[in-house]
Amino acid sequence: MKEFILKANKSATSGDINIKDLPGSAGRLDLVCRCVNSSFFLSHDLRRDTVFYSVHYGEPNPPIALKFIGDELKRLSPDERSIALFIKKALEKDSSKLWKESTAGIYTAKQEFRDLILEKKNENYRIFYLHLNGKPLEECNLKLNDDDDEDILFVLGDHIGIGEDDEKFLDELGAERISLSPVELHADHCIILVHNALDKLKNNE
Amino acid sequence: MKEFILKANKSATSGDINIKDLPGSAGRLDLVCRCVNSSFFLSHDLRRDTVFYSVHYGEPNPPIALKFIGDELKRLSPDERSIALFIKKALEKDSSKLWKESTAGIYTAKQEFRDLILEKKNENYRIFYLHLNGKPLEECNLKLNDDDDEDILFVLGDHIGIGEDDEKFLDELGAERISLSPVELHADHCIILVHNALDKLKNNE
Ligand SMILES: C[S@@+](CC[C@H](N)C(=O)[O-])C[C@H]1O[C@@H](n2cnc3c(N)ncnc32)[C@H](O)[C@@H]1O
Ligand SMILES: C[S@@+](CC[C@H](N)C(=O)[O-])C[C@H]1O[C@@H](n2cnc3c(N)ncnc32)[C@H](O)[C@@H]1O
Repeated sequence: MKEFILKANKSATSGDINIKDLPGSAGRLDLVCRCVNSSFFLSHDLRRDTVFYSVHYGEPNPPIALKFIGDELKRLSPDERSIALFIKKALEKDSSKLWKESTAGIYTAKQEFRDLILEKKNENYRIFYLHLNGKPLEECNLKLNDDDDEDILFVLGDHIGIGEDDEKFLDELGAERISLSPVELHADHCIILVHNALDKLKNNE
Repeated sequence: MKEFILKANKSATSGDINIKDLPGSAGRLDLVCRCVNSSFFLSHDLRRDTVFYSVHYGEPNPPIALKFIGDELKRLSPDERSIALFIKKALEKDSSKLWKESTAGIYTAKQEFRDLILEKKNENYRIFYLHLNGKPLEECNLKLNDDDDEDILFVLGDHIGIGEDDEKFLDELGAERISLSPVELHADHCIILVHNALDKLKNNE
C-alpha cells in the first residue's frame, strides 16, 4: 500500500465551510482538495492502491483526521469544488476515535497526526518524510513487485510545514527524509512526483 | 523560455461561465485552471520563466486562446476558483487576432492552436509533444544553462487528447514525442513532471 499523510495546520474541523472560500476561512482546504486529486487521479482511472490522510488542526474542533481509500472511492471528480463538497459532508459527521464512513471511501475520526503515524510504524510501514534536503527516493531501494509490495507512508506538510516538534518525532521514529526536487514545492505537486517515481521504478523492475 | 500549450477541446469561449460548474457547462475549465496552477506555483514563489497557453474550442465563439506570462502575473492564488475568476474576466473581453491584456499577465486573442505552434516553430523553439509513448525528456539533451537557455514548447492534450490531425501536424513539424510516465496522466500532472525533470537537469549541470 502507498499512503500519504498531510498535516493541514489551519484546515477547518467542522462542516461549517464556505465552499467559495476554501483558501481563506476554510484554512487552505483548497490545498487538501488538490492533494486528494494528486493522490488518486489517473487519466481515466483512480489509483486503487493509494490511501490519503489529512489531519486538520484548524477551528473549531481540532484535530480531525480524514481518510480517503482509493479502492473504495466512488463518483469522485478531480475538481476542487466537488472534492470540497465531499470533505464538507465528512466534516459534518460527529467524530470519535473510531473511523466513521461518510461517503464511499471517505472516513473521519478524532485522531492526532502523530498517533496515525505511530500506528503505521507499528504496522511495519516504511516511513518517509518529504523534505527539500532529503535524499532521492530513487536511491531508497524500495520493494515494489506485485506479490510482495512494501507498505510505505509518505509524510508531508502544508504551506506552514509540519513544525519542529513533529520533525523531531519523525527523526526519533527513524523516518527517512527524501527530496523530490531542488526547489520547494506545494504538497500536492510533491504527491504527483512521488507517484511518478514509484510508477517508473515499478515499470523498470 | 519554457512554454506549455494545452488544447482545451470543450472549454468555454465566452465569459458567460458558471464558476460552480467548471467541469460541466464550462467544458473542463477546472483542468485549465489546474494547468495554470501547475505551470506557475512554487512553494512561496511563481515560476517567472514560464508561459502557459490554453486554446479553447468550446461554445460559443471558438477558438479563443489564453496566454499567461509568469513574469507579469500578479495576485494569482493557486486555487481553481480564483484562477477561474481571472479566466472568466479574460473571456469577457472582445477578441481579435491581437493579444489583449485582461489582468496583469493574462491575455486573450482569437488564435488557432496550430497557428500558435507554427509561430513558435518560426521563432526557433524546440517543440515537444507530450505522449504516453514518447522517449524520456531526460534523453533529449536540453540546453538549460542560464546564459543560453533553449526556448522550448511543450504541447499537451486535455481529457480528449489533441486528435489525429494535430498529431500529424506536429509530426510534420518535427515535434519530438516525449513520455513522462508509463501510465496515462492528466495534463496538469504532466506539467508538474516536466518542470521537475527540467529543475533536476538544470541542478545537475
Ligand atoms: C509548501 S512546502 C512547506 C513550506 C514550509 N514553509 C516549510 O518550511 O516547511 C509543503 C511540503 O511539501 C514538501 N516538500 C516541498 N518541497 C519539497 C521537495 N523539494 N522535496 C521533498 N518534499 C518537499 C514538504 O513535506 C513540505 O512540508
Ligand atoms: C488525459 S491525457 C489524454 C487522454 C486522451 N484520451 C488521449 O488518448 O489522448 C492528457 C494529455 O496528457 C499528456 N500525457 C498523458 N499521459 C502522458 C505520459 N505518460 N507521458 C507524456 N504525456 C502524457 C498527453 O499530452 C495527453 O494528451
